[in-house]
Order: sequence, then structure tokens, then C-alpha cells
Amino acid sequence: MSAAGEKRMPTPDLFFHTARAYQASAALKSAIDLDVFTAIGEGASNAGAIAKRCGASGRGTRILCDYLVVLGFLTKSGHSYALTPDSAAFLDRTSPMCIASAADFLCDKRMVSMYDHLTESVRKGGSAVPEGESTAPENPIWVQFAQSMAPMMGNVAAATASAIEARAAKAKKALDIAAGHGMFGITLAQRNPQLHLVAVDWPQVLGVAESNAQKAGVANRFRKIPGSAFEVEFGADYDLVLLPNFLHHFSAAVSEALLKKVRASLAPGGAAVIVEWVPNDDRVTPEAAAGFALTMLSTTLDGDAYTYREYEQMARGAGFSKVSMQPIPPAPQSLIIAE
Amino acid sequence: MSAAGEKRMPTPDLFFHTARAYQASAALKSAIDLDVFTAIGEGASNAGAIAKRCGASGRGTRILCDYLVVLGFLTKSGHSYALTPDSAAFLDRTSPMCIASAADFLCDKRMVSMYDHLTESVRKGGSAVPEGESTAPENPIWVQFAQSMAPMMGNVAAATASAIEARAAKAKKALDIAAGHGMFGITLAQRNPQLHLVAVDWPQVLGVAESNAQKAGVANRFRKIPGSAFEVEFGADYDLVLLPNFLHHFSAAVSEALLKKVRASLAPGGAAVIVEWVPNDDRVTPEAAAGFALTMLSTTLDGDAYTYREYEQMARGAGFSKVSMQPIPPAPQSLIIAE
Repeated sequence: MSAAGEKRMPTPDLFFHTARAYQASAALKSAIDLDVFTAIGEGASNAGAIAKRCGASGRGTRILCDYLVVLGFLTKSGHSYALTPDSAAFLDRTSPMCIASAADFLCDKRMVSMYDHLTESVRKGGSAVPEGESTAPENPIWVQFAQSMAPMMGNVAAATASAIEARAAKAKKALDIAAGHGMFGITLAQRNPQLHLVAVDWPQVLGVAESNAQKAGVANRFRKIPGSAFEVEFGADYDLVLLPNFLHHFSAAVSEALLKKVRASLAPGGAAVIVEWVPNDDRVTPEAAAGFALTMLSTTLDGDAYTYREYEQMARGAGFSKVSMQPIPPAPQSLIIAE
Repeated sequence: MSAAGEKRMPTPDLFFHTARAYQASAALKSAIDLDVFTAIGEGASNAGAIAKRCGASGRGTRILCDYLVVLGFLTKSGHSYALTPDSAAFLDRTSPMCIASAADFLCDKRMVSMYDHLTESVRKGGSAVPEGESTAPENPIWVQFAQSMAPMMGNVAAATASAIEARAAKAKKALDIAAGHGMFGITLAQRNPQLHLVAVDWPQVLGVAESNAQKAGVANRFRKIPGSAFEVEFGADYDLVLLPNFLHHFSAAVSEALLKKVRASLAPGGAAVIVEWVPNDDRVTPEAAAGFALTMLSTTLDGDAYTYREYEQMARGAGFSKVSMQPIPPAPQSLIIAE
């Protein structure tokens, strides 16, 4: 480490680290697939014991666990590995907060392989994936998304429900657009027994949301509208319209047009609640929200990580008169509320 | 940031960051392929100017450059991007220290795709790549290695030559085992005009080393022994035998047997010079050397990132009486010298 302002020799460390960063994703995915974190949570501490519990070789387990220490997912003392507090909370399958299944979507081969075309996507200014990008009709990737992201998004949905608590408590009817796993609407319906939910998504995806609604005990207040959010009729009189992680897939003009359709479906006094990755105006902070723009460049034709200023402009262009943003910590996303 | 010892809520940030880390490798590779760093070095500073110079879209370039800022390869002020000192030194193709071509090997699809089998490799304890791992005879990946890693390894070779300066100045004959690009031996031959070089590698790979020897003006002191280092005759009376980044591909027993063969080829007073990734005994520090073990698990049958203690044991087992290690900063590798 060099002190601030001190000159140091240039090093290729960041280059070397980044060029091999794909190994980190692969190691994390393998550790989750082998259930290494649960094994350590259960008390297996050395490579031999972890290997036995995971049905793996001692040698492979030792190398994988050492790598997980380098990455910061485990600690090591002598030959003993232990979970960090973050890994214990989010990667041990016995933890109620476990989100390990999210790796099945984030590291899905179909998602990862879209980055093989990144250079061409930069040239073109949008996804150059020949077999169809992620917004192609009925792309099966969204069934995978709905199945594997429910726990991770469930945490974000809980933060969202808390953030709009007063408004949600009075709502009688909510529309969940591109519902996916359905967790955003389902969480509201669990907290408010008079709320009726309507979910829009591709038919196959809605099956996952419906199953989650059943598990959550709200299936009798859950109705499906299968199809594209741009084509189906929403109906009217919604107190809330949820747009969780959806607008980023499209151009600002397309998003604005959809917000206009959303506005027309609202009851008087109703609001659109947009859950989004919102970078600062500099577009390079904070890391997760800013970095999300590259995901959109690789996987969609013209999506982006829009700034608050841009979302505000879309909402005003769609006729909303009051627009505000609020963070929902610890989730890295933000809410944009348009009334 | 939490102060040391302060309790903080667990966050999924590291999980989310790591699950998508493959995007960082892809972004770096695309930036190099599009020559973004050279464009900025030439004075293009906003996305439009960089895009024009790189034959890309303004939108794609803006998103890519913002991502490079997030990763730490660029800085941004207003709409202007600038190179960091590290990027200027190592990624701008007009810099004499440029190592950008190394991404062609480090992010080669054949290398990256080996990690698709990582879970199975952990189960098995060695590479489970069905199409043949990296030590398979005449694997064409080593031609790519020799072609693209010469600049990066040239810097390591220069550090190596300086570290063994006194010994190398007196040498008359050196053997470069698994020479690859040949830079380790070539650098010595450039500094010592009486040194004759003999290089061992697969025939196709030796073509690259020979071409580098020609460029360096030492072709008249360069001789080739094509074939496997385990099978060919080395000859005798070498003052130096170089083993740059080679032993890590094999088991300790196989490495020890090769060191025995090396020892038999040395002149009295000669030495084997091993260039290696050497983690500390804890196997989890320093990051680059420790992380290299996963590369060996994924890409070889039984290679590893061995500790100094293990290399010392191999060398003593092979009959060497004096073994020592020395760092070669700024390179992250170390030298192990066996006499």
C-alpha cells in the first residue's frame, strides 16, 4: 500500500487480477453447487471433512476453500476453515436469509455466454448475441430467474414493502409488472390481507410466481395476466403498480411509453413503484448500480442503468406530477415512486 | 465502512460482486480488443471521440468506459476519461511496457471454458475437462501462450535476469525448459554475448521462441530441442537450467523426477533456476500466488501452487544440496535456485 500522494511504480496487478476474475465467479458457483458453505456451517472445518460432506476430493476441496479464503468468503486458521458472517447469513442453506440459489441465474451459462459477444455489443451499442438477447419473447432465462432469484429478491421485496408501508397498508389492488418470482407483490399481500394482486409476465414465468403465492398463502388473492407488458391489457383502478427491475431492459422512450400505460391503470391517488439500479449522475458510483449498465449493454438491445434524473424525466414525460427516490438499505437498489 | 471490531449487518455485496466477476474479465478483454486504452492515451477523452477512434458506438463505449472506471482502469472527470498510471504503462499499445496481449491467453476461450467443469474438477481433484487439459501433448493453447505472453513475461524475465546477474554473466550454456515465448533465456543471452541457449518445448511453440530470438538478435546462439521435457535428451554441461512457470503443472513426484534429470544435465557449479508462483505456507497469501492453485486444479491433472517448503523438498529429493528463494519485484512470482 502506498500512502496518499506517494509515487509508486506502476504494477500489472489489477490487469492480472481482472483478466482472471472469471475464475472467482466459477469458484463461487462450484462452492455453492457442492454446498461447501452449508458443510462448514454444520461443523466440517478441515478440507478432508468438508470433502467428505460434499462428495468431493480432499485435494480439490483444499484448493477451492483456499481460493474462497482469498476471495473473502471464508477465513482460515491453521488447516481449519470458517464462514464469515456474510457467508453464514447468505450462503449456508440452513440460514433463513440464504440467497445461494441466485448464482443459478447470475452465473447461468446463457447469461455468461452473452459476454462472449461483448466487443461486438460495444461496437453496435446493444446486445449482439445472435441467438436472441434477454428481452426476446418468452426467453426461458426468465423462468430460471424466477426460480432462483426469489430468496435474493425476497430480501429486496421486504425492504421495499417496509419503505412504502403506509401506502401499501391502504392499498386494495396492486399490479406487479414482469413479476418474475412474484415476491414484490406477494410480500405486500402477506402484510396487507385486503390486497388483491395481479401479476403480468410470460406464461411459464407466472407459473413460478403462482407457486410462490401458494407457498405464501396468498393464492386466493393472486390473478395472472400472461403476456408481454407492452401488449396485454392491465385493467384499471390499481392503488399500486410495481415495476421491479424491469424498465432497465428498455430504452428511455419505451420506458416512458410503458409508464404512460401504467399511469392510465392507476386509481386516483395511486402510485407506480419502480425498483431499480440507479447510479449517481457520474454513472460510475456506486459500484453495483453503475456496473449494471454493462449487464444491460450485453444482454439487451437498448437497456441501461438510468440515473434518477433520467427516471424522473421519463415519469414526468408519462404525466406523473410527483416523483421521488428513496434508498432501501441494505439492498443496493433504490425505489422511485411516481404519483 | 465499519471501524475495526464494529458490528455490521451482513450484506450480500461480496456474493453479488463475485457472482458477476466474469463480466470484469469480459470488459477488460473487449477494451483491449477495441484498443480503448491506446485511444485514450492518444488524447481521445470523451465517449464520442473514443468510439470514433475504436470503430464502436458512442453508447457502447460510454457504458464500457464507465465500467472500466468502476474497475479502476480509468478515471472520469465530467464526461472525460483518462488512463491511470498502471493502464498507461501496461495497456496503452504505444507503451514499451505494454502487456495487453496477455489477455489473449489469460482470457482465451479454451482456458475460460475449462472453468465450466470446475465443480467436477473439485470432485475429482484434478482437471475434469473432457477435451484434454492443458498438459496434454502439443496442446495448441501453448502456441497462444507463447505468442501473447512474451511482453508480460518479458518483464518477469528482466527481473529474473537482474536477480541472477552475477551467475548469468559467467554462464556459457543455458537450457530453457518449456521455453514458450523463450523470453527467459533470450533475456539472458542478450545480456551475456557468450551465452549459448538451448530451448525445449513442443515444435510449434519453439517456432515462436525462435522468432523472438531472431528479433532479439540472438538467433545464432539459439538451438531447439523439440518434444516433451520428460522424454527428450537434454545434453549436458549447462551452467544454468531455467524452469520458468513449468513445475506447477505437475505433481510433486513428477516435478522431483524432472529436477533429477535437470541436475544430471548441469555442469559442476551449475544451478537450476525455477520461476514460480509461490504462496506462503498458509496457502492463502499473497493473493495472486495463492489463487494460482485454482488455475492448476482447473487446467491440469495434478498441478498446484507449491509452497517454498515443498519446492525445497523436491529439490533436495532430486539431489540438490543448496536451495534458496528470492522475490523478483515488481513481478509477483519468485525465483527458487537449486545448486
